[in-house]
Amino acid sequence: MKKINVAVLGATGSVGQKFIELLADHPWFEIAEVAASERSAGKKYKDAVNWIMQSSLSDRIGNMVVKPCDTSLDSKICFSALDASVAGEIESDLAKAGYYVISNARNHRFDEDVPLMIPEVNYEHLDLVKTQKSKGFIITNPNCSTIGMVMALKPLNDKFGIEAVNVVTMQAISGAGYPGISSMDILENVVPFIGGEEAKMESEPLKILGKLENGGITNTHFKISAQCNRVPVIDGHTECVQVKFKNKPSKDDILKAFNEFTSEVQRLKLPSAPAKPIYYFAEDKFPQPKIHRNLDKGMAVSVGRLRKDNLFDYKFVVLSHNTVRGAAGGTILIAELLKEKGYFGNI
Amino acid sequence: MKKINVAVLGATGSVGQKFIELLADHPWFEIAEVAASERSAGKKYKDAVNWIMQSSLSDRIGNMVVKPCDTSLDSKICFSALDASVAGEIESDLAKAGYYVISNARNHRFDEDVPLMIPEVNYEHLDLVKTQKSKGFIITNPNCSTIGMVMALKPLNDKFGIEAVNVVTMQAISGAGYPGISSMDILENVVPFIGGEEAKMESEPLKILGKLENGGITNTHFKISAQCNRVPVIDGHTECVQVKFKNKPSKDDILKAFNEFTSEVQRLKLPSAPAKPIYYFAEDKFPQPKIHRNLDKGMAVSVGRLRKDNLFDYKFVVLSHNTVRGAAGGTILIAELLKEKGYFGNI
Amino acid sequence: MKKINVAVLGATGSVGQKFIELLADHPWFEIAEVAASERSAGKKYKDAVNWIMQSSLSDRIGNMVVKPCDTSLDSKICFSALDASVAGEIESDLAKAGYYVISNARNHRFDEDVPLMIPEVNYEHLDLVKTQKSKGFIITNPNCSTIGMVMALKPLNDKFGIEAVNVVTMQAISGAGYPGISSMDILENVVPFIGGEEAKMESEPLKILGKLENGGITNTHFKISAQCNRVPVIDGHTECVQVKFKNKPSKDDILKAFNEFTSEVQRLKLPSAPAKPIYYFAEDKFPQPKIHRNLDKGMAVSVGRLRKDNLFDYKFVVLSHNTVRGAAGGTILIAELLKEKGYFGNI
Amino acid sequence: MKKINVAVLGATGSVGQKFIELLADHPWFEIAEVAASERSAGKKYKDAVNWIMQSSLSDRIGNMVVKPCDTSLDSKICFSALDASVAGEIESDLAKAGYYVISNARNHRFDEDVPLMIPEVNYEHLDLVKTQKSKGFIITNPNCSTIGMVMALKPLNDKFGIEAVNVVTMQAISGAGYPGISSMDILENVVPFIGGEEAKMESEPLKILGKLENGGITNTHFKISAQCNRVPVIDGHTECVQVKFKNKPSKDDILKAFNEFTSEVQRLKLPSAPAKPIYYFAEDKFPQPKIHRNLDKGMAVSVGRLRKDNLFDYKFVVLSHNTVRGAAGGTILIAELLKEKGYFGNI
Repeated sequence: MKKINVAVLGATGSVGQKFIELLADHPWFEIAEVAASERSAGKKYKDAVNWIMQSSLSDRIGNMVVKPCDTSLDSKICFSALDASVAGEIESDLAKAGYYVISNARNHRFDEDVPLMIPEVNYEHLDLVKTQKSKGFIITNPNCSTIGMVMALKPLNDKFGIEAVNVVTMQAISGAGYPGISSMDILENVVPFIGGEEAKMESEPLKILGKLENGGITNTHFKISAQCNRVPVIDGHTECVQVKFKNKPSKDDILKAFNEFTSEVQRLKLPSAPAKPIYYFAEDKFPQPKIHRNLDKGMAVSVGRLRKDNLFDYKFVVLSHNTVRGAAGGTILIAELLKEKGYFGNI
Repeated sequence: MKKINVAVLGATGSVGQKFIELLADHPWFEIAEVAASERSAGKKYKDAVNWIMQSSLSDRIGNMVVKPCDTSLDSKICFSALDASVAGEIESDLAKAGYYVISNARNHRFDEDVPLMIPEVNYEHLDLVKTQKSKGFIITNPNCSTIGMVMALKPLNDKFGIEAVNVVTMQAISGAGYPGISSMDILENVVPFIGGEEAKMESEPLKILGKLENGGITNTHFKISAQCNRVPVIDGHTECVQVKFKNKPSKDDILKAFNEFTSEVQRLKLPSAPAKPIYYFAEDKFPQPKIHRNLDKGMAVSVGRLRKDNLFDYKFVVLSHNTVRGAAGGTILIAELLKEKGYFGNI
Repeated sequence: MKKINVAVLGATGSVGQKFIELLADHPWFEIAEVAASERSAGKKYKDAVNWIMQSSLSDRIGNMVVKPCDTSLDSKICFSALDASVAGEIESDLAKAGYYVISNARNHRFDEDVPLMIPEVNYEHLDLVKTQKSKGFIITNPNCSTIGMVMALKPLNDKFGIEAVNVVTMQAISGAGYPGISSMDILENVVPFIGGEEAKMESEPLKILGKLENGGITNTHFKISAQCNRVPVIDGHTECVQVKFKNKPSKDDILKAFNEFTSEVQRLKLPSAPAKPIYYFAEDKFPQPKIHRNLDKGMAVSVGRLRKDNLFDYKFVVLSHNTVRGAAGGTILIAELLKEKGYFGNI
Repeated sequence: MKKINVAVLGATGSVGQKFIELLADHPWFEIAEVAASERSAGKKYKDAVNWIMQSSLSDRIGNMVVKPCDTSLDSKICFSALDASVAGEIESDLAKAGYYVISNARNHRFDEDVPLMIPEVNYEHLDLVKTQKSKGFIITNPNCSTIGMVMALKPLNDKFGIEAVNVVTMQAISGAGYPGISSMDILENVVPFIGGEEAKMESEPLKILGKLENGGITNTHFKISAQCNRVPVIDGHTECVQVKFKNKPSKDDILKAFNEFTSEVQRLKLPSAPAKPIYYFAEDKFPQPKIHRNLDKGMAVSVGRLRKDNLFDYKFVVLSHNTVRGAAGGTILIAELLKEKGYFGNI
């Protein structure tokens, strides 16, 4: 099978670099173009980027000339790691011109005709793209802190009906990009604030867990409260989650729901799909970011410490890799699903 | 004024060392004896201890011969930093023999006749010691993670009546003592479990905020849920707190309650009392352990991020120094209050 | 090819765990037995170990019953991760009884008939085992901080003749085992002392770079000074090295020596051999432990910052993974070489 | 005594903030003006600064209007924390106009008529200012990593004559200012490069230890080699130093030299002078940045691990607080000395 050419937009930033790292040996997609801001366009990628990934930058990518983020791109499939300050317009323009944009930016997440997609959770929302009035389309990946939590909530909501969710996060520094957070601010410290993060966690799950009906998404409705903290961890968001259910499950019911959870992307054995979406760990001290973030190449979600709660019904801890599952990896998985389901036409 | 001789029990451990550090220049108390386990007894303190404080160990203390923790001690006032594995019996024996034991250990916290004391919160519980059937008495300091939270809750409970409290903590490594947590476990990591900690936070506040009546404490009753995490911070516990009230306050009502909160120990200007029990910071990014833990010599509690909550009424962040306010410093403040109120008799 | 059964001695410690992790999918060797102290013997491995590796412990190994470290072991090839307090005698006894012991312990490193082996550096020392008066033999792996440095020195010594070496290390916490260093001691700190480490670095290179002649090793002789520090890094020792040469090379001569360096284990393409022993990085800020420690599965050495020196001739920075290249991985590479060269007889 | 008005130039940066923190309760100087770049000038200081000190910003300073760094300043004594990109010209202009500029910037350090001053080491160089052809003068503070080392070398050079110095540093992140180093670059990592730092350490000591004669400084001459690393420590530079002497001392000779070392600023009991310039610690594991950086309010230098060396004569470890002793505190001490010695005229 010939590989499909793809472009990475915002290729010099930390999420862009992660796209390039994860796509390095992808069985289906091949990076044919890297695009970035005008400041970088025209330079060799290796000269434009401050490469911060652990793996080495390949000569093939390093020597690519950075292109502008516009319709001069040849690749019809674009992974967008653009900054929110510019992503909105660029992504719209590309979609109008027939490009398929799978985006990690927040700008179009709440557009009525744009799916907010976690493949394991709401892949049936894909059809929403058919309502887009563009030759191409835009699909968005949720916020990194939303993804882990919603993957853990999905099987519980399906079986027991969620009434309320409370979450407190301890988020890794890589979530802030590069250079991101000053070492003076976070070494041996906690910062109890991440701009805009709590609002995202309180709104995105309701669309993701909503229903596609009558050509649009009907949000689900339960209350969410989120508190977001930054901690001195490199990768991996840890989240303390409490849930209230409509139909009261036993602890074993919940463990069964976690363990049996699987989805279309597992059945299709998509290249980036984790073997299991959720791994439950019985040891009290687990999950931990340093130990579990790379499970199934960083695409699985780790859960532990399930126990009864005095105020809600149950509480537990969720851990997921914020730049893989929560950003570049999750976005690539969406593209794999689109490909497999024929959304890319005869590319 | 001649200083009062005191002994430190469990003097070689990290809390014991903190007692010695904080009492170094105390205007009222003078360390006359250091006591520890049989393994250390008989040695010079400087040879028995692995001194880990930042300040230097004085020659006077360093050259003291470590005594056993028994009634051979001359000082009638004992600060106990004993390990829970031995504190129960030793403290009881000393109290029976007429010693005044102010303890940081958990063993006697829920004895019916033992006050669980935060001077700013429940100093009227002191009289409970009169019900103890010993020549001396035992008074206990709550758990480090409880103290900061309850100090912040006290003015709110007084004015608006608390119905429920939810708390998620991010606790410093010094709370585990020395050597405590392996660096292999916590560097660049989060451990979402601290043995026994959640149960303490869910029970201690109800006694502390209870009422002394008919010679005993009638606990208050509201529901608490606690989730406790260890993070790579040296000192200072950060806590995300959510509260539901009986009488719904405005945000300004709460800020006023925080800012106006004061207590007997402030009025008495006790040596270790913070100028204000609570400092509220309006900046979104505050409070932070690295910046605020040493406020008023580590005895004040810092609060920030007060905002409406979707599930409870309000949420906010509390920060306090776990080994000062939450351990040795808080215990010394109890002793100062006891002295000032005449509980030590004519020592 | 049927895999060869091997045993891991000291299997519950952190180096033992690293052996188990690295041998999990080894193409030649299969862990048939795990052995440890009497305290663990008889238990299932999963119950005896506090597993701290990032990868999961397999059920196959987890359910093995831990054996004692004695001649009841069936596997003739033993990887020793024993603590130095017991390794000396156990390893001798096993060798006498016909076992082939490849050891990471320091005890036998300076025995006259025991090779101190870095396969890329002194594989011709293997024959020294023929002088051992045992049915089996012992081969030792050098200290973790020695290995990276000596690999970088080897091509320089061969071509230019070394006269003096000065080294200052910044070593990772994993080098101290588990629990090893208290987080209270190393978080946001440097400890300028590692017991015994400097003496190892000042003596081991002279034997490793020595010559096998007349049935023994004639040490090389140049002066070495080592200063060893512990820093808050999880894995990867960084070393600032200065060298004085007999035959003065140009900077390009040295770069060429680094880049062209290869050895028998590369020619044999042994499973654990790095593609190249040394990678030189031209960027000023490289090498760094977080970025380069996993190069070639942690078996390559990274070098950078080569520049003229005011006191010696040149200085540069060396980085290597201390628990892979510097311990378990290096030891496995020795075993692969032994196998390939026929030292295991007809096992 | 009425306090002397001073201005802080570059007041919004991290060194500027440290000046403000250290001068908060200074017995002789009072901050009358804060000055910064045009971007900040005209704003209230509290609105222009991102205050990152642990102590609170006082209302008095916070409400000051930031002034431009020019001759509109009323205070004749200026502490300069200016960035090197602008310090050169601004400081020259101010000196010409009659201001006394005590600078932490590197620009004028090697001007022939500008003292490079560590009060304990070369206070007799003060007279060099008389050769400046300005109404005022400029005096400079050396680089942070130079200061600790040279203070430790001074008594040794005086008594035994230094022939060569080798140093490898492990430097704190605060040395890079704010935001300075990205947390992504330094958390759980070492960066073996600090731009320009090695050249400073190899040149500054020769001027500082030089002799004022014939109206100029005659540099001392011995060879220095420096290698500079950044480590995840907040404050405090740790340095591994090796020294070769002309007159070979015993270990006791050196310890005596360290312990007896004192200087004019100690004799004068200047407010910022440490009680002793050097504290020697006999424990192998000392000095450590987390434990010793604040000794004598951060103004003392800690030394330990003195031992014979295979290549030089002796090696030892030096630790000093880089933003106090190595920057703002050292600069203030210079000003105190100038005041006491009458260099400020009748201000």
